[in-house]
Amino acid sequence: MSAEIITIGTELLNGIGKDTNGAMIAAKLASIGIEVQYQTTVGDDAARMADVFRAAAHRAQVVIMTGGLGATSDDLTRKVIATVFRRRLVLDEAVLEHIRARFRVRGIEMPAINEAQALVPRGAGIIENPRGLAPGLHFTHLEADYFSIPGVPHEAEAMMDTYILPYLRARRPGIPATRRVIRTVGISESVLAERLRPVEASEERIRVGYLPHIHGVDITLAPVVPDLTWMEDALDRCEARVRELAGDHAYGAEGDTLSAVVGSLLLERRATLATAESFTAGAVGAAITATPGASRYYLGGIVAYSNRAKQELLGVRATTLERHGAVSAETAEEMAHGARTRFDCDVALSSTGIAGPDGGTPEKPVGLVYFGIATSDGVRSARFVLPGNRPEITGRSVAYLLDLARRQLAPAAV
Amino acid sequence: MSAEIITIGTELLNGIGKDTNGAMIAAKLASIGIEVQYQTTVGDDAARMADVFRAAAHRAQVVIMTGGLGATSDDLTRKVIATVFRRRLVLDEAVLEHIRARFRVRGIEMPAINEAQALVPRGAGIIENPRGLAPGLHFTHLEADYFSIPGVPHEAEAMMDTYILPYLRARRPGIPATRRVIRTVGISESVLAERLRPVEASEERIRVGYLPHIHGVDITLAPVVPDLTWMEDALDRCEARVRELAGDHAYGAEGDTLSAVVGSLLLERRATLATAESFTAGAVGAAITATPGASRYYLGGIVAYSNRAKQELLGVRATTLERHGAVSAETAEEMAHGARTRFDCDVALSSTGIAGPDGGTPEKPVGLVYFGIATSDGVRSARFVLPGNRPEITGRSVAYLLDLARRQLAPAAV
Repeated sequence: MSAEIITIGTELLNGIGKDTNGAMIAAKLASIGIEVQYQTTVGDDAARMADVFRAAAHRAQVVIMTGGLGATSDDLTRKVIATVFRRRLVLDEAVLEHIRARFRVRGIEMPAINEAQALVPRGAGIIENPRGLAPGLHFTHLEADYFSIPGVPHEAEAMMDTYILPYLRARRPGIPATRRVIRTVGISESVLAERLRPVEASEERIRVGYLPHIHGVDITLAPVVPDLTWMEDALDRCEARVRELAGDHAYGAEGDTLSAVVGSLLLERRATLATAESFTAGAVGAAITATPGASRYYLGGIVAYSNRAKQELLGVRATTLERHGAVSAETAEEMAHGARTRFDCDVALSSTGIAGPDGGTPEKPVGLVYFGIATSDGVRSARFVLPGNRPEITGRSVAYLLDLARRQLAPAAV
Repeated sequence: MSAEIITIGTELLNGIGKDTNGAMIAAKLASIGIEVQYQTTVGDDAARMADVFRAAAHRAQVVIMTGGLGATSDDLTRKVIATVFRRRLVLDEAVLEHIRARFRVRGIEMPAINEAQALVPRGAGIIENPRGLAPGLHFTHLEADYFSIPGVPHEAEAMMDTYILPYLRARRPGIPATRRVIRTVGISESVLAERLRPVEASEERIRVGYLPHIHGVDITLAPVVPDLTWMEDALDRCEARVRELAGDHAYGAEGDTLSAVVGSLLLERRATLATAESFTAGAVGAAITATPGASRYYLGGIVAYSNRAKQELLGVRATTLERHGAVSAETAEEMAHGARTRFDCDVALSSTGIAGPDGGTPEKPVGLVYFGIATSDGVRSARFVLPGNRPEITGRSVAYLLDLARRQLAPAAV
């Protein structure tokens, strides 16, 4: 059972846009045991699109195409399907009404060009689009299944979940190449790889992968060739060994986030949280509240970007700022203490640092950051010099600060 | 002059990894006038790789491959190049010494498997790799140039900059397909396309593209076939017409962000800014400070996630919360007013809303948001019902709120 993904759009080939659908679709197909053998990206060009559709038709049993279903003149997928697979386009009244209705809700009359989105290749099924205008299309050709879905990521993802995966699971059962993901924070890829060498040596049927992100490194374990007779046992063994070797750097599995892990720990302890942010300017609060239900523990925060705000809203002392500067352990600690008092909460986190590109000095370079944490046990701080540019320093700081909270709140197991 | 990108790696097709090299290479090639017509991703499988290499050889004059140059058994690029292009692999002593030296620096003896990375297809040139072990390879075959570079993004990028771009610029001079990007906010793709129909009709040598993001739609203008004799004039004309038709929804060009545009307007007016955020929880502050130098106008903010924080830190009245609720125009306005007072600033922005997935009611559904803005002219608010899931509602809200500030601060031209 092999699949091919085709992503369509000139913007994906000229550096303006970025494809995220390919990886999303590949992950979902892998989860039901379907292997993606090729992914091809092609611009909005009828001849090249036809070329790519024909190549896929020769080598795949499942073809998923994204993009080119909009209403504008550069949206050519319907036309090219009609040509390559010799199916006339027919206006679908139900689809047209769905599109009209979506405009009506917004109090806008449907522009005439949107009628094109109701054209359906003869004999193709409709994949409903509750989140947008254009429906997806499904047809078969010489034993292969073809799905054409929008390029808008959340529309594409919804169609994968509600239609394509259930259909394929029923019609084309495969052996899911089960995998394990162990998420880590605060340890570099190469140090981690050195530590995990015994795992790689002990089990050659399992492939160990490393995927570095700004927020940490994910370790993946997957069978080289899926085989139900030994796969789960071997993965269990490897995963246990990886967790042991990674120590307290390992914080979760696939789908877990530091934000959710910290949230769970707070809920367990019935503790409340507040933030005092300087250079991260709200990014920590935004990360915490990315977890649904965060209002059960997160009370709020103060973004004290200016020194005056640090003094007036968080009670940082003028003498602290004068003597140690805004980027210092002392300021970080007074900020955390101030937030804990203002919000009357159990745990308060603070950040102060230099994200660059300007503002660095030999003593306080770009990337120098201090994080503070205040609890009923008192206040403490941590200092790091982080690599990267402005967004990378900010992104990494959010992870490090959440990790500080995780370690503080975790049962003292290590 | 057409190019093809081939990215190699099983991890790119099973949802574990994500390709970033393709977009990076495409953008760099576009900058020197080389059009990428196809990008193909293939797993670490010799037969499929050969299939993809052969397809590229039929249709492109420049082929850039990334990945598969590591030292482990699943790194097959050298072998497949040898097979497809009939070139024997030869051990290159200089490359071997480079690899040995890099291990030596780390105090490790070179593992035997790394010797494979010094194998070079006969007649291929070496692209030096100051950042890693495997060198890149360059060879020609039937008038086409082939480049094979590592999959590690910073190694690949360095080879693009130091070798591939200079080589191509000298040998294959293209006409840079100048393009224009007009960024818009607050108008849907299809409504925009309706408005811009006269542009598409008036100039068929220019292709009009639409790229929807969470924060708005980018319009791209590019010549169908680059031609120096008329291209710039036609683009100028089209761009002026697009800006006219898009009206005040157009806020900038390629590289501009709402955050930077709002920052410039604040600097022009020597005005200061503060934020009061409820459900966006710091995302607005983080967006504002994504622009370097934001400390010249951004003083800080209050994240008032709980009602108590709204009252105590922003002075929202208890009666307002009781009568109208936390998600209301009245609360948004009092929050903005409170932030303006607390921070003693010129402009204050506020957000309150329901990002979901829970917390919606028939009267106040998920996606209902209110934004407030307080200036010396007083306080006002705007109400929207936004589509999408939790991160999408938050992301769109950041754009809408920054847009509110932009319209308030912009010279009253419209």
